[in-house]
Amino acid sequence: MENFDYYNPVQVLFGKGKIAAIEQLVPRDAKVMLTYGGGSIKRNGVHEQVTRALRHHDVTEFGGIEPNPRYETLMKAVEQARREEVGYLLAVGGGSVIDGTKFIAAAARYRDGDPWEIVSRGARVDDALPLASVLTLPATGSEMNSNSVITREKTREKLSFSSRRVFPRFSVLDPETTFSLPPRQLANGVIDAFVHVMEQYYTTGTGDAIQDRFAEGILETLIELGPRLVNEQPEYASRATFTWAATMALNGLIGCGVPQDWSSHHVGHELTAFHGLDHGVTLAIVLPGIMHATAASRRGKLLQYAARVWNIDPASPRAGELAIERTEEFFRSLGVKTRLSEHGIGMETIERIVNRFRERGESALGGIPDVHAGNAREILVSRL
Amino acid sequence: MENFDYYNPVQVLFGKGKIAAIEQLVPRDAKVMLTYGGGSIKRNGVHEQVTRALRHHDVTEFGGIEPNPRYETLMKAVEQARREEVGYLLAVGGGSVIDGTKFIAAAARYRDGDPWEIVSRGARVDDALPLASVLTLPATGSEMNSNSVITREKTREKLSFSSRRVFPRFSVLDPETTFSLPPRQLANGVIDAFVHVMEQYYTTGTGDAIQDRFAEGILETLIELGPRLVNEQPEYASRATFTWAATMALNGLIGCGVPQDWSSHHVGHELTAFHGLDHGVTLAIVLPGIMHATAASRRGKLLQYAARVWNIDPASPRAGELAIERTEEFFRSLGVKTRLSEHGIGMETIERIVNRFRERGESALGGIPDVHAGNAREILVSRL
Repeated sequence: MENFDYYNPVQVLFGKGKIAAIEQLVPRDAKVMLTYGGGSIKRNGVHEQVTRALRHHDVTEFGGIEPNPRYETLMKAVEQARREEVGYLLAVGGGSVIDGTKFIAAAARYRDGDPWEIVSRGARVDDALPLASVLTLPATGSEMNSNSVITREKTREKLSFSSRRVFPRFSVLDPETTFSLPPRQLANGVIDAFVHVMEQYYTTGTGDAIQDRFAEGILETLIELGPRLVNEQPEYASRATFTWAATMALNGLIGCGVPQDWSSHHVGHELTAFHGLDHGVTLAIVLPGIMHATAASRRGKLLQYAARVWNIDPASPRAGELAIERTEEFFRSLGVKTRLSEHGIGMETIERIVNRFRERGESALGGIPDVHAGNAREILVSRL
Repeated sequence: MENFDYYNPVQVLFGKGKIAAIEQLVPRDAKVMLTYGGGSIKRNGVHEQVTRALRHHDVTEFGGIEPNPRYETLMKAVEQARREEVGYLLAVGGGSVIDGTKFIAAAARYRDGDPWEIVSRGARVDDALPLASVLTLPATGSEMNSNSVITREKTREKLSFSSRRVFPRFSVLDPETTFSLPPRQLANGVIDAFVHVMEQYYTTGTGDAIQDRFAEGILETLIELGPRLVNEQPEYASRATFTWAATMALNGLIGCGVPQDWSSHHVGHELTAFHGLDHGVTLAIVLPGIMHATAASRRGKLLQYAARVWNIDPASPRAGELAIERTEEFFRSLGVKTRLSEHGIGMETIERIVNRFRERGESALGGIPDVHAGNAREILVSRL
């Protein structure tokens, strides 16, 4: 195990009826800005529950944060927050809304230049508005971490930042808020959580027993639940397990002291930036290609994954290949198209992405040197 | 999954060489009291590392906190802390030292009566001295939770309290500090961590997929590592995994939203109170008896445990029994005597313990009604 520091002060309120508790947790001495997305929270009753809980607070709202939240949109929220002297942000939505709100929190108190620098060059976040979240779409783990991914429309860039200043003070995870989610969003959420685990597990690491076991436990749970979540009527117990699985997948815990490789996300972000594909869909496309390209260099871990997660005899000659096939079949069982050609994407996009990596001079795309600008084309071509 | 709140703000610094980092983390504007046990930290170099890191701090010391830390001893530390106007506590040791230091922290600021009330009647802890820890004996999880177990010599009581005010601000977990531990302490630590998991897992709960998988992962890891830890030369990787496993076993995570039953601890505490047995030893004695007594009422979970943790075919007629036997064999493989008679304990003690439970009127000893004052005798007799 490598040395690590772990710190996660997010208070989690988990379960049905928990939204009402925010009345006590959101301070009353500050103006609160509710941030949300396209308005689904108004249709499924979550907006009403939140505003009822905050009926004695001074509240303003900012809606319209899109999936893959855009800098351009978020800067409007920053202006509003400054103008209305907002002192507390409450994100109500999925990972995009929470990620976007983290950026708003940091940008509102970033006074020394263009807040885009926080993302583009990792400018230090010395201060941020306090924020909290009410999660409605389990997927990204943003409700219990300090990460944020932001897209800039003008330059078609999708970049991230991380700062302890943007941990949510608390997050409400009420599985009932997921009952109105369409199958597509559930499938995306399952895949996103699955690949979050893989980026911290399917690496060159071995011998990290606890983290590996936890990672495998989340993967097994998602495999067991995924098709049911997408294809069957909502049911509390499985929604609850899914919600907690997605949070655990990226709250920092399973990544403690182990090598990580975020290349599926890295390549996937480019597909979203160029074609607007759902984040989960890009991961389902890219991960199997990366697994093939690294099957030799990560052989030990691939066989462990095959054996423990898929019950494949690791001694069988096709064990690794079979595990990769099963992974892709699992994604497809959720109704997701896992090939670039199925999304009308061809060589032109592949060349643009590869060129972008080369221009940036990125040798290791995600942390481990076996995925790099040099084999990105081969990986993407294998996914046509 | 039941509703739950989860909050754990302990900053963990994990790995070799991490003790030096406390120089930056312990504030300099307060007098620091180092608390420790019998002095092993002076023999293994940990005391030197800590005092070197704090060479620019104003430091006082309180040594001599015993295993199963005693109220009588801790109150001397409280007096010293008050007299010397200590503003920060740094516990250097295992669970007993950290538990004891939590009590010192709360008692030093408890002004309205006898601090024993914090433990005896759960008096609310409104204030406490800030504390942190340097862990040297992985076992109790105290380094990353808000619990504390205290013994009162006079009345032979061993009782606990819990308060958010006594979370360590940070904890250093350097696996190298465990290299000098004798086999007996390692065995106790492995058993303690194992039974912490069982108290949160081997219950009536089902369908709590993530928590169950995590619990099983810790159990499998301890089973794999335990005999090696106790019988072989120290080796960093396995010490690191053990250290993290013990922390994860009782930092609150695997207990989120699941039924818990702390009856093994509850009964075990009495054996320590009456006979001074090591805490880990008492758990190794009691747990198999509780598993037998609840084999019918917790059949589903017992078979899940048999199948997933011990690879026993759950359809075999003796699956449950076999899993209990394996559990006891595992404890014995660590060199621990798992029978009361092996420790010279007989019916007299059993009657005293049973009477104490009856006097307290405790129907469910640990949380689930199938272990109670009524079957405590049967459980203990089965462990003679």
